[in-house]
Amino acid sequence: MLPRKYDNQLCSIARTLEVIGDRWTLLVIRDAFLGLHRFEDFQKSLGVARNVLTDRLNRLVDEGILRRRRYQERPERFEYRLTRKGVDLWPMIMTTLKWGDRYVTPEGKSRLILHKDCGGEIDERLHCSRCGAELGPTDVYVEPGPAAATSNAA
Amino acid sequence: MLPRKYDNQLCSIARTLEVIGDRWTLLVIRDAFLGLHRFEDFQKSLGVARNVLTDRLNRLVDEGILRRRRYQERPERFEYRLTRKGVDLWPMIMTTLKWGDRYVTPEGKSRLILHKDCGGEIDERLHCSRCGAELGPTDVYVEPGPAAATSNAA
Repeated sequence: MLPRKYDNQLCSIARTLEVIGDRWTLLVIRDAFLGLHRFEDFQKSLGVARNVLTDRLNRLVDEGILRRRRYQERPERFEYRLTRKGVDLWPMIMTTLKWGDRYVTPEGKSRLILHKDCGGEIDERLHCSRCGAELGPTDVYVEPGPAAATSNAA
Repeated sequence: MLPRKYDNQLCSIARTLEVIGDRWTLLVIRDAFLGLHRFEDFQKSLGVARNVLTDRLNRLVDEGILRRRRYQERPERFEYRLTRKGVDLWPMIMTTLKWGDRYVTPEGKSRLILHKDCGGEIDERLHCSRCGAELGPTDVYVEPGPAAATSNAA
């Protein structure tokens, strides 16, 4: 999605950063995992300029990470859903969140990612810290963390 | 390391992107995991402008992700090593690599991440695909993948 600055590098990491390495793009993907689907909801969550958001959503559709689905005819309204390719970004998003929880949010966690079956929190290897189950995106729910009360965390 | 654009968002993901979300920064971290430590080696691997590389290395030191160690006195020479905080980025780097292997490198894998004990390849949940062991950064070695021969992959 960004200029291919690393064409001399055949590297899965460099290529991935070309596709999703823009920070707004990653936050759009985060919000999609948190259950947002509509332009207005993304815009409200991110506080990003509308033209920037339009650009990032279109590129994510072009890359096959989101698909655009019409949910209303008059007036036409669309929503955005993660494709399989998009859902498969979940481990990357979750490992980013867990590192951030540990190292860059001294206020405490803004979100808790919890195992539907037992309520245990996800650990840094994406297992349930209570029952040990390997967790995927459909196995968890999100609750505000201890630090959420004092902020307007999305 | 980048301007705090998301100060209204208490979110571990947004904060992490502020620290390491710059793409060159993530490629420096990748190279550190691949065993590079010296300025000249990073520069050769990345082909990045020297002033940009200096900036990224200094910021990573300021953030406590790399530490700077003198390895020669006259002339003074320094190398860069991952701290614990840096090493803890390994799951994020690996999940990025695995997603990229699957979705954005049709040429095939440029690198294989293999389990030292049994030679099995790491899977998308960072386990050994042969013996099932949970893998960390000291459990693996890197070999050129099938696509590396035809490129100058770092």
